[in-house]
Amino acid sequence: MATKPVLYSYFRSSASWRVRIALSLKKIDYDYKPVHLVKDGGFQNTEEYREINPMRQVPSLVIDGHTLTQSIPIIEYLDETVADGPDLLPKDPVLRAKARALAETINSGIQPIQNLSVLNKIGETKVEWAKYWIERGFDNLEKMLEKTAGKYSVGDVVTIADLCLVPQIYNAERFKVPTSNYPNIARIGENLEKLPEFQAAHPSQQPDCPEELR
Amino acid sequence: MATKPVLYSYFRSSASWRVRIALSLKKIDYDYKPVHLVKDGGFQNTEEYREINPMRQVPSLVIDGHTLTQSIPIIEYLDETVADGPDLLPKDPVLRAKARALAETINSGIQPIQNLSVLNKIGETKVEWAKYWIERGFDNLEKMLEKTAGKYSVGDVVTIADLCLVPQIYNAERFKVPTSNYPNIARIGENLEKLPEFQAAHPSQQPDCPEELR
Repeated sequence: MATKPVLYSYFRSSASWRVRIALSLKKIDYDYKPVHLVKDGGFQNTEEYREINPMRQVPSLVIDGHTLTQSIPIIEYLDETVADGPDLLPKDPVLRAKARALAETINSGIQPIQNLSVLNKIGETKVEWAKYWIERGFDNLEKMLEKTAGKYSVGDVVTIADLCLVPQIYNAERFKVPTSNYPNIARIGENLEKLPEFQAAHPSQQPDCPEELR
Repeated sequence: MATKPVLYSYFRSSASWRVRIALSLKKIDYDYKPVHLVKDGGFQNTEEYREINPMRQVPSLVIDGHTLTQSIPIIEYLDETVADGPDLLPKDPVLRAKARALAETINSGIQPIQNLSVLNKIGETKVEWAKYWIERGFDNLEKMLEKTAGKYSVGDVVTIADLCLVPQIYNAERFKVPTSNYPNIARIGENLEKLPEFQAAHPSQQPDCPEELR
């Protein structure tokens, strides 16, 4: 790798967090560029950042001379191109499909309906709104995990599904969803929390995390 | 393939439609099982269907002895396991990442916020809600396509991004979003409409399409 990759990230963004875990598992050293999603109307909405990411979202990863966006495609790219570290997806096509389906259940089924821009649009009732969709999503996800989980979401190895699960559990807790109602989700979350690569990617460990949340 | 694949689908579901295009491009013969999302509270909400798809969504594809869910993972699976037909993702890792990012911009960035269950929850203002998110999403998508598009979304070959684009244009039209405001989206949509595999996958061609919409 000629130059060090650059990650445009926000400490509490779920999608940035997923990519931070992937970079950490793949042992990739990178520069962290904070994108504040709230202050001054959000740096993601500036023309400067929009040149980097037309979707006005984090993360963006500058790597191998290209700027990549969207967390799942970035994770797939790292899995395809970086030999170091563990695989982020299983080799078996059916298990890959299961891991991806769990990841998408979170990435497209839960997170987008409770993300910052949707909650701003919902306004006053945003806490109930977020809680409703996370509970509904976790109810479904728990049922999927009954069929696939071992120590982690798909058997006993970490996959892309786990990279999505941990930030979603954090969001659930922010919106007072009792994760103890979902025994598989809670157990897998606890197992993942123990891994140093997941600890390093936690919002509290990022340079843009405010002192009071550390 | 020992037994014929079975697709659980709803004629107007975007995610089902994407998979129908993939099956059509990959020349896979399959049985079509309609899942009515509206009638009698929705067949997807029955315990019978939930055994097939715990997320209570379409599509589900029964193939090679497994039941797969979530459109993007199903398309990735078909691309990895079926030699017939064209590739659904480019071979080059950077182009794969670009195609996937466009697909996710629709799959996780637009469609979930305007899907049936969210609109039902929004209630009275659902048409304005859907229009707002599709316009915002198309504005972003158009900006991404300026950098990637040729005849189709990524250069001149059909990719997973195009499989997502066509159903999203149909939704935009349903919610009165003027697609002519987005020259790349409109042009690519017109090019894709001409392909027989896309024509075969259109809602109007499905067995569960009501007579009046044919």
